[in-house]
Amino acid sequence: MADEYEFDQHTAVAPTGETGRFDADVNRAWTVGPKPNGGYLLAIAARAAAADLVEHDSDHTDPLSATAAYLHAPDPGPAQVQTEILRTGRSASHVRASIVQQGRLCVESTFVMGTLEPARESEAWWSDREPFDLPPIDDCVRLTSTGGRNPFQVSIMDRCDVRLDPEVIGFATGQPTGRGELRGWIAFADGRPVDALSLLFFIDAFPPATFDLVSAGWVPTLSLSAYVRANPVPGPLRVSQRAQVVDGPRFDEVCEVWDASDRLVAQATQLAAIRIPEGQTPPRPRR
Amino acid sequence: MADEYEFDQHTAVAPTGETGRFDADVNRAWTVGPKPNGGYLLAIAARAAAADLVEHDSDHTDPLSATAAYLHAPDPGPAQVQTEILRTGRSASHVRASIVQQGRLCVESTFVMGTLEPARESEAWWSDREPFDLPPIDDCVRLTSTGGRNPFQVSIMDRCDVRLDPEVIGFATGQPTGRGELRGWIAFADGRPVDALSLLFFIDAFPPATFDLVSAGWVPTLSLSAYVRANPVPGPLRVSQRAQVVDGPRFDEVCEVWDASDRLVAQATQLAAIRIPEGQTPPRPRR
Repeated sequence: MADEYEFDQHTAVAPTGETGRFDADVNRAWTVGPKPNGGYLLAIAARAAAADLVEHDSDHTDPLSATAAYLHAPDPGPAQVQTEILRTGRSASHVRASIVQQGRLCVESTFVMGTLEPARESEAWWSDREPFDLPPIDDCVRLTSTGGRNPFQVSIMDRCDVRLDPEVIGFATGQPTGRGELRGWIAFADGRPVDALSLLFFIDAFPPATFDLVSAGWVPTLSLSAYVRANPVPGPLRVSQRAQVVDGPRFDEVCEVWDASDRLVAQATQLAAIRIPEGQTPPRPRR
Repeated sequence: MADEYEFDQHTAVAPTGETGRFDADVNRAWTVGPKPNGGYLLAIAARAAAADLVEHDSDHTDPLSATAAYLHAPDPGPAQVQTEILRTGRSASHVRASIVQQGRLCVESTFVMGTLEPARESEAWWSDREPFDLPPIDDCVRLTSTGGRNPFQVSIMDRCDVRLDPEVIGFATGQPTGRGELRGWIAFADGRPVDALSLLFFIDAFPPATFDLVSAGWVPTLSLSAYVRANPVPGPLRVSQRAQVVDGPRFDEVCEVWDASDRLVAQATQLAAIRIPEGQTPPRPRR
């Protein structure tokens, strides 16, 4: 993708001349409060993984899967990505990519990299997942970077255009529906076309699904896994983020991204920590 | 757990005297064909991660989550586990654990380790997942290590007692139901009690869910993630393994493990490669 778009500018990595060492610049534009968004950091790491493979004459430049451990939030500013190719295969290669800042390991990620087919309308051979409908984009509610009940600035909402289904927007006024699911449209604010790399950002751009259950503040990710299933066709993407089980101090949530041709193009799951306020009654499950 | 049980004997790791270096012995008893089972290897890695934390005065000895990349299948025999504590926190610590054999990196895994409450009957604060019923164990069909349509010996089926719901056993006679789901009971064959560690094995002990869709041979895991949600109460566990989307050369499947008190104690997801035989018609999804 040409560097005319901010996502490409801000996820760029530059070879340092040393194998498996890249310079990156964590940009303040992609933060939630003071901390860079996890999906944005994953995209930086994926670009370094791809660059390392290209240096080794591989054409495995698309992320097929990614797992990430967020150890310390890097500050906006210069950082390094250290990559190590763990295995090269015929159809897939494994790469570890670590984001380091001032000698401190901030993000440890492992990628399976491969080569996705060009985007095209295509049905899965078999699927048990069903795409969902949303009201037209203009009838949905855009999330903003400031205002509402955000205790801090959510800068990524200026970088992407998230439009939530009005049915799930109750949390913004302190009235979560209790269904534990947020869904809506997503696109880049500057019109950057969607591709496989951008899905690593989109799977982590929505608010936590627990916002639709309880006002429980910050929910730090313990472990994130993402699968990129296909290059999305041009057009707006639909995202669903749903909580599955809140048990003790942790919960898990599942994210799905569907493209304009009703293809499931990305999936993610994460385990995160949560602190339920004492005496808070759980809403009923959605089933 | 006392070393009277084979799972504990065969997942044992011995400190080498060097920090973060452990000796292990990959036992032939836990293989599928010639290759050690992925969940068994994950349990070995988890024991090394816990041992490293204990050496560093941490009580984070339970796996909360695990991600694994299977790079090369180790042979049965001696191996080393190399661990690195990436972060220690108040309630969780991150550890990378790598299984190495004769200098070759075979499995790269990352654990979030913590301290789970003792097993007890407890309801999740909120859950959108529903436990499922199975026929009584004696009415279910035990999977055996030899015979049937297995092209090779599945030794793990002598280590654990897997009893499939008769409704899903069609694949064994070449008649998959097309629902893409296998479910059944699981326990250790030697009566070892269930605990958090053993869940890392149980989430990968079932046949692939695609067996219930198509006869497509070997389906190598590209990326595996597991969450351990709670210590299971004593008693048999129920496992569901279901395919979600088969698209192009890859599919994803989700595994859930429920304990005798109807608590979801473990979840896993994996992305795996699959080769659909040419001209094979997809069965209808189960919905």
